[in-house]
Amino acid sequence: MKKLINAPEAVLADALRGIEAAHRELRVDHENRVILRATPKDHGTVALVSGGGSGHEPLHGGFVGFGMLDAACAGEVFTSPTPDQMQAATAAVDRGAGVLHIVKNYTGDIMNFEMAAELAAAESSIEVRTVIVADDVAVQDSLYTAGRRGVGLTVLMEKILGAAAEQGYDLDALVALADRVNAGGRSMGMALTSCTVPSAGAPTFDLPEDEMEIGIGIHGEPGRHRVPLGSAAEIAQQLLDPILADRDYAGAPVIVMLNGMGGTPLIELYLMFGEVAALLEKHGITVARSLVGDYITSLDMAGCSVTLLHADDEMLSLWDAPVETPGLRWGR
Amino acid sequence: MKKLINAPEAVLADALRGIEAAHRELRVDHENRVILRATPKDHGTVALVSGGGSGHEPLHGGFVGFGMLDAACAGEVFTSPTPDQMQAATAAVDRGAGVLHIVKNYTGDIMNFEMAAELAAAESSIEVRTVIVADDVAVQDSLYTAGRRGVGLTVLMEKILGAAAEQGYDLDALVALADRVNAGGRSMGMALTSCTVPSAGAPTFDLPEDEMEIGIGIHGEPGRHRVPLGSAAEIAQQLLDPILADRDYAGAPVIVMLNGMGGTPLIELYLMFGEVAALLEKHGITVARSLVGDYITSLDMAGCSVTLLHADDEMLSLWDAPVETPGLRWGR
Repeated sequence: MKKLINAPEAVLADALRGIEAAHRELRVDHENRVILRATPKDHGTVALVSGGGSGHEPLHGGFVGFGMLDAACAGEVFTSPTPDQMQAATAAVDRGAGVLHIVKNYTGDIMNFEMAAELAAAESSIEVRTVIVADDVAVQDSLYTAGRRGVGLTVLMEKILGAAAEQGYDLDALVALADRVNAGGRSMGMALTSCTVPSAGAPTFDLPEDEMEIGIGIHGEPGRHRVPLGSAAEIAQQLLDPILADRDYAGAPVIVMLNGMGGTPLIELYLMFGEVAALLEKHGITVARSLVGDYITSLDMAGCSVTLLHADDEMLSLWDAPVETPGLRWGR
Repeated sequence: MKKLINAPEAVLADALRGIEAAHRELRVDHENRVILRATPKDHGTVALVSGGGSGHEPLHGGFVGFGMLDAACAGEVFTSPTPDQMQAATAAVDRGAGVLHIVKNYTGDIMNFEMAAELAAAESSIEVRTVIVADDVAVQDSLYTAGRRGVGLTVLMEKILGAAAEQGYDLDALVALADRVNAGGRSMGMALTSCTVPSAGAPTFDLPEDEMEIGIGIHGEPGRHRVPLGSAAEIAQQLLDPILADRDYAGAPVIVMLNGMGGTPLIELYLMFGEVAALLEKHGITVARSLVGDYITSLDMAGCSVTLLHADDEMLSLWDAPVETPGLRWGR
C-alpha cells in the first residue's frame, strides 16, 4: 500500500492536524473529532451539522464555513462517527434556533445521528431535525443501506441549505427545502479502480484492467454491473441513462456536478463533463450551474460520478449565494 | 491504461470542450487551443499569458480569470504549445500596455515563447516581457531543462503577478516583482507512483511497491534518488531539507503550498501538510498563508510537492487580493 501516511491507525488524527494548520478560519476539536467554524454564526439562526466516515474529502469537513456547515463530525475512514461526536458538535454550534443534521443514507450514520439528536434534546434541550440524503439511483438497497445510498447530492444539499440557514430560514423551512432538493436530485457513479482503505492495506476489490464498474458506491460497494472499459462518451451515457430513466429532467434547469472519486486527474474530469454536457443538451436539459472536481471522494479510487439537481429559482439563488469553505468558495 | 477518455489523440480537444462547458466566465479558442477570459480586462493594463504542456491541470487554464491570467496556451500532454498558439494568445489579450509571458523553465517552452514574443513584436507591435520560473531544488539540470525546472512556484507567481497586473503595475514593475518571487521561492516534489501519458498507454517509469522517488519532476522526469517508502513525517523532512539547505527561511513569513500530483486524495494532502507545518514551526519559520490541494499536477501520479515562498508585505497583500478563476478563488 502506497500512501502519504504515518500509520493506518493515525490517519484521521494526523489529517485533522493538517486541516487545522491549513485553515485558520476553522477550529478542530481533536478530542471529539469535530471540525467547526472558528467564528460561530449569529445567534438566532439554525446551525447545520453533518458528518460521516472519513475518506470522502473535502466532504464534510471541507464544507464547514460561512454559507455551508457549522460543524462536521469525522469518523474513521469509511466508518460512522459516534453519537458522542455528533452530540458534541450539536451542542457546540447551537445558536438558540435549533440544529439541522444532514445525514447520508447509511445505516450506521442514521442510527448514530438519531441517537445524538435524542441526547441533544434530552441533555441540552436543543431542537434537532434531520435531513436524509438518498440520491444514488444505482441500487435500491445496498451493503450499508436500506434504500438508496446518499452520495453526490449531499454536496449540493449542504450548499443550498447552508445558504438558506445563513439567510435566516427556520428549521421547518429548511426541512421543506431539503425535501425539494431530495425530490429533484439524482446521482450515479462509476469506478475504474478500487480504493485502498489504509487499515485494510489492500484494494477493496479487484477490477480487471479491461473492466469498469458502473453504479459503484463511495466506499467501493458493488454497483449495478461490471462492463468492458468504455470511452468517456459511453461512460457518460451509462451514468446519465439510469438517472434520466428514474426522473424526467427534460426542459428543467439543472445544477450538474461532475465529481471525481479521488484518484482521477482534473483533465479527465473536464473531458467527462464535456461528454455529459453534450448529452444533456441532446436531451433538451438546460445546465444552469455546474461544478467539476473532487467534492465527494472515495480515497484513491479512480472514477467519477454525475449528480443532477432540478433547481427552481429559489435553489439557484441559494446556490449562487456567497460561500467560504475550503472546498467551495465564491461570491463574497 | 484506465482513463476517462475517448481516444489518446483526442484528450486535449475533448478536455477543452469540457472546460468551456463548465466555465461560462471563460472562452476557448479551439483552433489555437487558448483559454481566455470571456470578459477581457480593462484597456491600459498589462495582460498575462502562460501555458505549457497539458496534464498539469488546473495549471494553466484553470488559472485564467480575474486576478490571475488573461490567457493560457494548452499544448498536447507534456508537450510545449507552439509559437503560433502563444502569438494568438498574446495578440488576443493585449490591452495596449504590453503582455507578460510567464514561462516554466523547460527548453521547449522557453524557445517557443521566445519566438512568439518576437512574432508579436514584429507583426503586432506588442511589447512582450518574459518571466521564467525555475524553482525546483531537486536537480540543477534535467532531462528537459538547462537549470532548474519550473514547478509549484508557477502557481504562486501567476497569483501574485495577476493581482499586481490587475492593480495597474506596468511591465517593468511586474518583471521586478517576478524577480523577487523567483528569489524567494523553492519547491521539491516526490512520487509514490508513475503517471501514464495517454498516448504512451503505459506508466512512464516503474517504481517498486516499497520505493518512492524524491525530487521527481512534473512529467515523471527522474529526481534525486529512489528510497524506501517512508512515513509522511519522513517524506516531509525529505522534501523540506533540500529546500532549507538551498535557502534560509528562518524567521521569514512564508506562503506554503502543499500540492497534490493528481492521483493523491485530499485526506493524504492534509496529513502531509500537518507534517510540513510542524517541521516549519520547528525551524522557526512562520506560515503566513497556505494552500493545500491539486494545483500543478502530473496526470494521475500519486505524490506531492512542497513550495515555499518568502513573502514580503507587498506579496502577501497581492496574495490576499481577490481572485476568480476555476482553480483559485477568493475574496470578492
